[in-house]
This record gives sequence, C-alpha cells and structure tokens, in this order.
Amino acid sequence: MKIELENVKPAQIEARSFEIITEELGDVSLIPGTEPIVKRCIHTSADFDYAQNLCFSEHAVEKALEAIRDGASIVTDTQMGRAGINKKKLLKYGGSVHCFMADEDVAVKAKEDGTTRAVASMDKAASMGERFIFAVGNAPTALVRLYELIREGKLDPHLVIGVPVGFVNVVQSKELIMEAGVPYIVARGRKGGSNIAACIVNAMLYMMEK
Amino acid sequence: MKIELENVKPAQIEARSFEIITEELGDVSLIPGTEPIVKRCIHTSADFDYAQNLCFSEHAVEKALEAIRDGASIVTDTQMGRAGINKKKLLKYGGSVHCFMADEDVAVKAKEDGTTRAVASMDKAASMGERFIFAVGNAPTALVRLYELIREGKLDPHLVIGVPVGFVNVVQSKELIMEAGVPYIVARGRKGGSNIAACIVNAMLYMMEK
Repeated sequence: MKIELENVKPAQIEARSFEIITEELGDVSLIPGTEPIVKRCIHTSADFDYAQNLCFSEHAVEKALEAIRDGASIVTDTQMGRAGINKKKLLKYGGSVHCFMADEDVAVKAKEDGTTRAVASMDKAASMGERFIFAVGNAPTALVRLYELIREGKLDPHLVIGVPVGFVNVVQSKELIMEAGVPYIVARGRKGGSNIAACIVNAMLYMMEK
Repeated sequence: MKIELENVKPAQIEARSFEIITEELGDVSLIPGTEPIVKRCIHTSADFDYAQNLCFSEHAVEKALEAIRDGASIVTDTQMGRAGINKKKLLKYGGSVHCFMADEDVAVKAKEDGTTRAVASMDKAASMGERFIFAVGNAPTALVRLYELIREGKLDPHLVIGVPVGFVNVVQSKELIMEAGVPYIVARGRKGGSNIAACIVNAMLYMMEK
C-alpha cells in the first residue's frame, strides 16, 4: 500500500482541519455563537460526539468572554489542563491559570477530610474570595463540590466548564452542575478530559481575537 | 429528576472504573499483555474505540517495559503530554521526560527549515544520540519525521507511541510509522491526543509495579 501525505503547509494545517470538520458536520445544527468551541473540541479529540453532547447555559459564552476580557483567572483540576491552556493569550487580559492539586495544604486538607484533592482544591479556590472561571476536566468530585459551594452561597463563578471524563459519578456530576444556577459549558455523558477543558478555554481566547 | 451519586471512596474510584470498563468490554478480545494499556486509554477518554484502534507491534510492550526498567527517557511532542506522564514513577528507574517544543533552538530551526517545531524537536532528539521512547500525541509531522530519521539510520527508538489526533495526515503518519521497522503502539485512525500518549506511558509504569 502506498501511503500518500496531503501537502499542507504547517501554518495551514489547523485551517484545513476546521474545513474538514465543517464539511463532515454537514447540516448538524449547532447553537449560534458556540460553533468555534464545538469544532475545537472535535479538533482536539477527532470525536464528533462533541457536536451532540456539549450543553451551554444561556449566554454562557458571552459572559465568559466578558469575564476574560475583564481579567478573570481560571482554576483547573489538572496540571495537564493548566499545561494546555494558552496562558500567554490569557495574560494579555490579565488572567492566569491556577491548579492547586499539587499544593501541600490541599494534600493535607484532603487527608484530614477523607476526601479527594480535587475537592480540597475547590475549597481552596472558594476561600480566595475571587470570581473564577472553573475548568474541570478530570474529577467529578470537583464538580460536585462546586455545586455544593455555589448552593451554600460560598462561590459565584463566572463560568463552570464541566467536562470530567469517566465512569464513576461523572454523568451525575455534570447533571448537578447544570442545576447550580451559574453559567456552564458541560459535555453531557461520560466523555471529556483535561484536553477538552483546555481546548474550550482556548477556543474562547481565540474567539476574542477575531 | 433526582440525581443520585454512587457512593465510592476516593481510593476506590479508579478500581471501580476499571471494573465497569471490563464489564462493558464483555467478550471483546484484546491482545494478551496489552489489556492494561487498552483499558487505561478507555479510562482516559471514555471512548471504547480504543478497544479496536490500538495496534501493537510484536512484543512492543515487553520491550518498552525493559527499556524503562533500564532507565530510558521519554520524548513527547506537547507540554500537556509531559504534564500528564507520571514523572515520579519514571524517575524511580532513572528516566525523565523531555519536550523540546518550547526550546528556542527548535523554534529557530523550524523557521529556517520552513517546517513545524514538532519536526525540529524530533531532529533535536535524534542529535542527542540517546535511545528514547517517543510519545507523539499531537503532531503527525513529528511521526513522519521519526519515520524518515529511522529509515535514514539516524534514530533507533526503543518504542514509538504514535497517537496524534486530527484530520490532516494523521491517519497516514500512523500507517507510515507502523512500517518503520521499530516497536510501536499506534491508535489507528484519527483519534488520539496528548492525554492518550501520556496514559499509555503511565499504563506501562503501573504495569511495572504489579
């Protein structure tokens, strides 16, 4: 078998990829204003399920873009998520990315409370008294804790990106966060990941440059 | 609708997830010795396609485990991949994780050559004269360059993990690397990602502890 490479210049690879995604989506209808996010999730995963499973609360994207423009920072639940977010573009507006998972105080608190470090990380974020954008790509326990903190009036996030991946309480944690009464972007079902969390943030950063 | 959380202790979540994956795989047949890798890819993505698309050259896993035990280091094509690999466990055997993508010399070389930084990164790895494990989760151009370097006799990797994701030359780059004559683990088709690259490395590290 002869393997033939498509001749696409490095700078054109992304544009060509988005063309292919748009072609293959055909007449699948996406919520206006969310297309760049949905397509980037497909670009990141080669998984067209994201055309069906992404749920957006009303005006979630507009509110998030405004928050980023005003310098909002992001809290994520994995080092991979932090690594994947375009920190240079975020910093242009004054925001930065936090991941508290490896913090010593978080490890101690989680052990004391018999909970996950992800839960302790969300508690730490809430204690800072700042309005964040949360990007949860791994731990359903983080999403459940965010729901509780919001309901207890201890947290008022600009946006919760709820895209943990997996098999235990992942589906439920996403349904919960959609009932918390705050802006959300959620990948309904089992799928997601820190790559998806990062790519949703990046999609919004790139939307702001257009 | 009442949302009910499953009561699983933090330390049990992963084991419970693998139980569910094993149940749902049912009688899908996996290559003996590759199950922990296939299942961890599904665990990372909630995507059962990995039960079908992962291809292993003969004894690829055994050879990689031996290389890790002997202190082999890993080269990856994204910072996310590097962030996701369990560096502490790798270091127990003496290995570390390199990602050259943000290196100044790589940026300069890519610009000079009119190529991608991923290609320049692979060239840099080849110039170091060390036998690496490559974990490519993003750039098909990196995989194509590895194929060329191997064919030119300039590189002799312990293993190539070829799991870039996407739409332009991704499928082809994976078919190429499977013909390079070196041990490989490849996710055939469009799917993959830096999360998958990292989780394949981690699966092998965890296999070594059993």
